[in-house]
Amino acid sequence: MRVAELSRLSGVPVPTIKFYLREGLLPAGELTSRNQARYDDRHLRRLRLIRAMTDLAQVPLAGVREVLEALDSDTMSMHDRIGHVHRAITPSRRLTADDSARTAAATQVGELVARHGWSVEPDAPALATLVDTVAMMRSLGQEHLLGHLDAYAEAAEHLATLEVAAVSSRPDPDQLAEGVVVGTLLGESVLAALRLLAQENASARLLGG
Amino acid sequence: MRVAELSRLSGVPVPTIKFYLREGLLPAGELTSRNQARYDDRHLRRLRLIRAMTDLAQVPLAGVREVLEALDSDTMSMHDRIGHVHRAITPSRRLTADDSARTAAATQVGELVARHGWSVEPDAPALATLVDTVAMMRSLGQEHLLGHLDAYAEAAEHLATLEVAAVSSRPDPDQLAEGVVVGTLLGESVLAALRLLAQENASARLLGG
Repeated sequence: MRVAELSRLSGVPVPTIKFYLREGLLPAGELTSRNQARYDDRHLRRLRLIRAMTDLAQVPLAGVREVLEALDSDTMSMHDRIGHVHRAITPSRRLTADDSARTAAATQVGELVARHGWSVEPDAPALATLVDTVAMMRSLGQEHLLGHLDAYAEAAEHLATLEVAAVSSRPDPDQLAEGVVVGTLLGESVLAALRLLAQENASARLLGG
Repeated sequence: MRVAELSRLSGVPVPTIKFYLREGLLPAGELTSRNQARYDDRHLRRLRLIRAMTDLAQVPLAGVREVLEALDSDTMSMHDRIGHVHRAITPSRRLTADDSARTAAATQVGELVARHGWSVEPDAPALATLVDTVAMMRSLGQEHLLGHLDAYAEAAEHLATLEVAAVSSRPDPDQLAEGVVVGTLLGESVLAALRLLAQENASARLLGG
């Protein structure tokens, strides 16, 4: 297809596509004349992946470049490739809690991860977010809400197994990466919305008049 | 306690406390002289609740006032009071998907809620968020990631039952409301972080080299 068709199918304006081409984020098309090139489905999928990262996750272009290099690597395992995408789109969210609450939270989270036998890197951004959030709950005197942390972890583990299986069923690396971006970010929003609805339902059942 | 002690224990500056008093968000203390008043634990708890709403959920002051009026109402059921707090802190997040994807998503979400027999108001903000997010996943050609929507709903229902029971174990209405604010907002962050860690673990197990 021509660049105009690529633009129409992806919803990305032609000047933006040309910018991605100049920056090397999108591989060059096959030249058919001095000024014209032909593009294929691989270009379309890669464009969709770039937009999913920049639009849904506000990943800066340097981060997008890093992810694409990881995807195109011949030496990385699928797990490492997915890990690169995953981390690029999920920066840690920092909250400020006092030091003693933070120390207690780090112990609580470390024990939780060990108890469930999870294999996670010690520098995973989500680990820092989790410690900070638990510390904040402790600082606010709401430790009792953490009593069901294991139930949360079990639910997360159950869903994550289904999610990784669904995402990794896609054979093409770009499609797989797009699934990781969309599934991680929009999946979080789906789960959060369902939790709010389930809370409304549980409140109606347990406390309704 | 004096206002200085109330400020120290809550971490809220004295001028801010005086502003809340003038605005009627915080009930007046007991006057002990022309210029001095005494405050108690109820003031401290209400201050913590106000800060939890403004700091964690960026609720505007008008919303805080509405929540506090609901809490102080003698005529509302506990479910209605919790519902007021819940909605004030969880505005719907809108995404733009095309109309046909949105119609299909609304049907899919409606069937899901009916299948699980959930009692939720048709104007619940989370319902709009859920429809928009599902529509966005469909627009991006990632419907296959929605195959486990029922598993998400079951997990959310299981956790919500535990959460509502934990929150409603607090007898004081301000403590209960603070639990709803903290549990809803920070609980979402805890669950999201655990999901990312569980995904890393599942990826290592299923796809690791």
